[in-house]
Amino acid sequence: MYTDITAREELATLVVTGPDRPGLASTVTSLIASHEGNIVSLDQHTTNPAGGDFFQRVVFHRPGLAAAAPDIRSDLEATLKPYSMSSYFRQQRVLKRMPILVSKSAHCLVDLLWRHRRGELPVTIPLVISNHTSVADDVRSFGIPFFHVPSHGPDKAEAERRLLEILKGNADFIVLARYMQILSEPLLDELDVPVINIHHSFLPAFIGAAPYRKAKERGVKLIGATSHYVTKDLDEGPIIEQNVTRVDHTMSAADMQAKGAYVEREVLSRAVKLHAEDRVIRHGNQTVVFN
Amino acid sequence: MYTDITAREELATLVVTGPDRPGLASTVTSLIASHEGNIVSLDQHTTNPAGGDFFQRVVFHRPGLAAAAPDIRSDLEATLKPYSMSSYFRQQRVLKRMPILVSKSAHCLVDLLWRHRRGELPVTIPLVISNHTSVADDVRSFGIPFFHVPSHGPDKAEAERRLLEILKGNADFIVLARYMQILSEPLLDELDVPVINIHHSFLPAFIGAAPYRKAKERGVKLIGATSHYVTKDLDEGPIIEQNVTRVDHTMSAADMQAKGAYVEREVLSRAVKLHAEDRVIRHGNQTVVFN
Amino acid sequence: MYTDITAREELATLVVTGPDRPGLASTVTSLIASHEGNIVSLDQHTTNPAGGDFFQRVVFHRPGLAAAAPDIRSDLEATLKPYSMSSYFRQQRVLKRMPILVSKSAHCLVDLLWRHRRGELPVTIPLVISNHTSVADDVRSFGIPFFHVPSHGPDKAEAERRLLEILKGNADFIVLARYMQILSEPLLDELDVPVINIHHSFLPAFIGAAPYRKAKERGVKLIGATSHYVTKDLDEGPIIEQNVTRVDHTMSAADMQAKGAYVEREVLSRAVKLHAEDRVIRHGNQTVVFN
Amino acid sequence: MYTDITAREELATLVVTGPDRPGLASTVTSLIASHEGNIVSLDQHTTNPAGGDFFQRVVFHRPGLAAAAPDIRSDLEATLKPYSMSSYFRQQRVLKRMPILVSKSAHCLVDLLWRHRRGELPVTIPLVISNHTSVADDVRSFGIPFFHVPSHGPDKAEAERRLLEILKGNADFIVLARYMQILSEPLLDELDVPVINIHHSFLPAFIGAAPYRKAKERGVKLIGATSHYVTKDLDEGPIIEQNVTRVDHTMSAADMQAKGAYVEREVLSRAVKLHAEDRVIRHGNQTVVFN
Repeated sequence: MYTDITAREELATLVVTGPDRPGLASTVTSLIASHEGNIVSLDQHTTNPAGGDFFQRVVFHRPGLAAAAPDIRSDLEATLKPYSMSSYFRQQRVLKRMPILVSKSAHCLVDLLWRHRRGELPVTIPLVISNHTSVADDVRSFGIPFFHVPSHGPDKAEAERRLLEILKGNADFIVLARYMQILSEPLLDELDVPVINIHHSFLPAFIGAAPYRKAKERGVKLIGATSHYVTKDLDEGPIIEQNVTRVDHTMSAADMQAKGAYVEREVLSRAVKLHAEDRVIRHGNQTVVFN
Repeated sequence: MYTDITAREELATLVVTGPDRPGLASTVTSLIASHEGNIVSLDQHTTNPAGGDFFQRVVFHRPGLAAAAPDIRSDLEATLKPYSMSSYFRQQRVLKRMPILVSKSAHCLVDLLWRHRRGELPVTIPLVISNHTSVADDVRSFGIPFFHVPSHGPDKAEAERRLLEILKGNADFIVLARYMQILSEPLLDELDVPVINIHHSFLPAFIGAAPYRKAKERGVKLIGATSHYVTKDLDEGPIIEQNVTRVDHTMSAADMQAKGAYVEREVLSRAVKLHAEDRVIRHGNQTVVFN
Repeated sequence: MYTDITAREELATLVVTGPDRPGLASTVTSLIASHEGNIVSLDQHTTNPAGGDFFQRVVFHRPGLAAAAPDIRSDLEATLKPYSMSSYFRQQRVLKRMPILVSKSAHCLVDLLWRHRRGELPVTIPLVISNHTSVADDVRSFGIPFFHVPSHGPDKAEAERRLLEILKGNADFIVLARYMQILSEPLLDELDVPVINIHHSFLPAFIGAAPYRKAKERGVKLIGATSHYVTKDLDEGPIIEQNVTRVDHTMSAADMQAKGAYVEREVLSRAVKLHAEDRVIRHGNQTVVFN
Repeated sequence: MYTDITAREELATLVVTGPDRPGLASTVTSLIASHEGNIVSLDQHTTNPAGGDFFQRVVFHRPGLAAAAPDIRSDLEATLKPYSMSSYFRQQRVLKRMPILVSKSAHCLVDLLWRHRRGELPVTIPLVISNHTSVADDVRSFGIPFFHVPSHGPDKAEAERRLLEILKGNADFIVLARYMQILSEPLLDELDVPVINIHHSFLPAFIGAAPYRKAKERGVKLIGATSHYVTKDLDEGPIIEQNVTRVDHTMSAADMQAKGAYVEREVLSRAVKLHAEDRVIRHGNQTVVFN
């Protein structure tokens, strides 16, 4: 982690994925060297030395990066194309744009805004949308635009049209920070950016309504939270991060929910940071996470 | 916790449960005082001040306990009967007898034997039963009798008859330390003592076969273990203790299973200790655990 | 934990401490019963059954508590006096007043304000004092009065005079939420209420300046935070709560400090909640904590 | 982690360290590719993109590794020499030899022997040495030679002469599993292999005698263990791994010590595994640990 903002100016992150074959690491690192890049960290994972999948994340330093970036990028694409590899290249100074959707519960939202203000989340937060108005003041006190998109009744078409209008072109990824509406599959397709969700309780247990009540009835000793990418299969997308906290018999379902909120905010903030730093690579319904 | 063995000679544990009503704590503590007992720890929980349930665990010191015990016990029963309260009274020097059932995996078994040898589990282990022979040497090296009760084919009647023969009258509670056979409901009824199980993976998720493979496919970041009382609803009994450990994309399902074994042994050993010290009180399908 | 605010109206917390002797639990619980109180939770600890110290925390429900409280209190004092016992009695609806002192770092302060606004800290926060002005807006956005008490140069007399003026009579306990000034012994004596501090890094290691740099140089894998009562021996007071988080070689001292801030806020908030609920009893330089 | 033993036959681990400069990753990975190696995992860390230090761990698969190894090794050395880089190359099928030294407490020793027997520690354990005889039976029951090297009085010369005689040439690294004797600096120099120690309590706090008693008196809420490399500065060597566990007021110093033993065994076993897999690189008094 390099928190020094000035250093970030000339750092690039490169993510390469595809079918594994001998020589890939050499191909990528030689290309970086040929562009005068100095690698500062490199993580690589292969699911199987024989016919598996290849995942690589490289951070490199290159004086004059902004000028050289287009050249590096096109060279990368040309070099990797014959091997059916995909690459993702980002100058670290170009922060990802991360709109946040939220309903009434502000705990996850405020933690994200707070960490962002402290300079700990390398993103920009262009706007916050809610189907309620209760968090409007909180959001605006952080100097961030707030949009109210109510969602009444069973027909979500109008609300989704508004969401698309606001989000389309303004998001590199989207965070659902306790947003209690389901995004339709067509909307997800149109948005076409990763969407990160936080799930109360410990997936895949206690899916559905009233998870904390069910956990209480079962007498569980741990409750948790799971942050995952949204897919059309609700709450079944690839997991980014999870954590738990201890509960006991003295706690009501409401107490558990209150304590669970602190796990939720910590897990979501951590998942967002991992994604913002390009440390999470999707692999089918799993993720490769380079911490 | 009082690990000093000599002190234990004159300590008693008392557990009182039943419908809550004002004055219960006073009734119990006055009775102990009238028998010259000095309370060294007291935990009490009420589910609801209006019409809830009452749970109390008291440890008291009483010089000459062995002589006074029958008198205290009968006084307790007489005193609590009018209030429909149940009581459980134990001299701490009288250790519970804990036979262990195990199949092939020895990790939980060995941890129990090891902690017992170190003087950390206040129980006696009269015998170990397995449907395999692979742990026989380990068990006997601890000086504990080993019984082989094979369980072939779909008909478990003969095996269960043998289990009952060995266990009946020789157990205050039974531990299933990775015992991969299901105990029938009639057998559980006949045994009529608490049975503690350890469940691989994180209940209630991934119930059934191959839990670690399912966890791998889901890309989970935490795996866990749950220790619970056995009821006729398999793996659905009241939970005593749970814990988790972190896993990542570099680990195969086998790696997860290997790491999970260390959570299993720690959770089971902890659950056994809690039960042995009368710190766990069943409450429907939940437990009150006085740590 | 009873988060239901209405229920709190008729709940009382009683803490009794002193030299242990047989019959104390009975004495206290009988007294509560005689005043028509119904005990909802009771924790008791004795350091030694022979000649040790006695610690008891009782929560009881009593219809019409507000009217009966003075009577219960005087009866308690009269009853316990002959045994040299101390008692502390509080109606739970009477929240403790908790002023907060802070310097520039707002992470602990904001977490306390935030939890308080969510209804999770049973205290009132009458005011916040800082020797800087950077947190003024944050504090006032929560609707809480802010006082600026600068502290220049080696002579702290004027600043401490101002602190005393503001705090005297307005505090049941005081929280130092990253307040980087030392409170003098005379000031502590004058204030005469518990003062809770949060210490960066893991006490008692790395005491003094630049703890995160020292931790980095030592290559530690865990950093932590300790919340303790302030005594005249700086950073040596009785510990209330501690926790740690994992760090690694990729992190600079600044990264560790940023991550440590999240442990600090969690540990301080937890310590404050424990104290606010009368769950912490000082015992020499140690604490008895009834979770 | 690849637990499949057969796969290990053709896997090699390479660790490269030295002053950072552009192109190093490319140089190493190209060399591996030129020798027909397929990289299965790669971790790299640079302390500073400008003039920092470079740390790299590569695992690669190479059919026919045993035959090709000498050639790869000499090519590596020739290639890296001009850059003042150091390299360490190991065929994974060649397990490190790990003698264990222990005194009376067997908890760490037994956990290592147990994990080794389960196939989870990729080492051979050629022998165990103790200055007592209490663990002899345990060791021999695992089929491992036991040597008794008593250490009486202040003159350790004879004991150290015996240790050297037994260990010299038979160890790739040495584990002190609660060995309560200090190894002299000349002995460490003569042995010339890494020595891993486990330190009770949480370094660097409570150094010296009776750490658990000191922790109790201080009322700490967490106790821990630290595993580190032994240097001539006792207990001040580079830290490999640490962990903590929660304690409370009900526990005596002996209870804390008993609970601490379980943290010690877990931390030491984990440190040993990390070292055995070449995941730990010393860097001055710190370590780079590629998990």
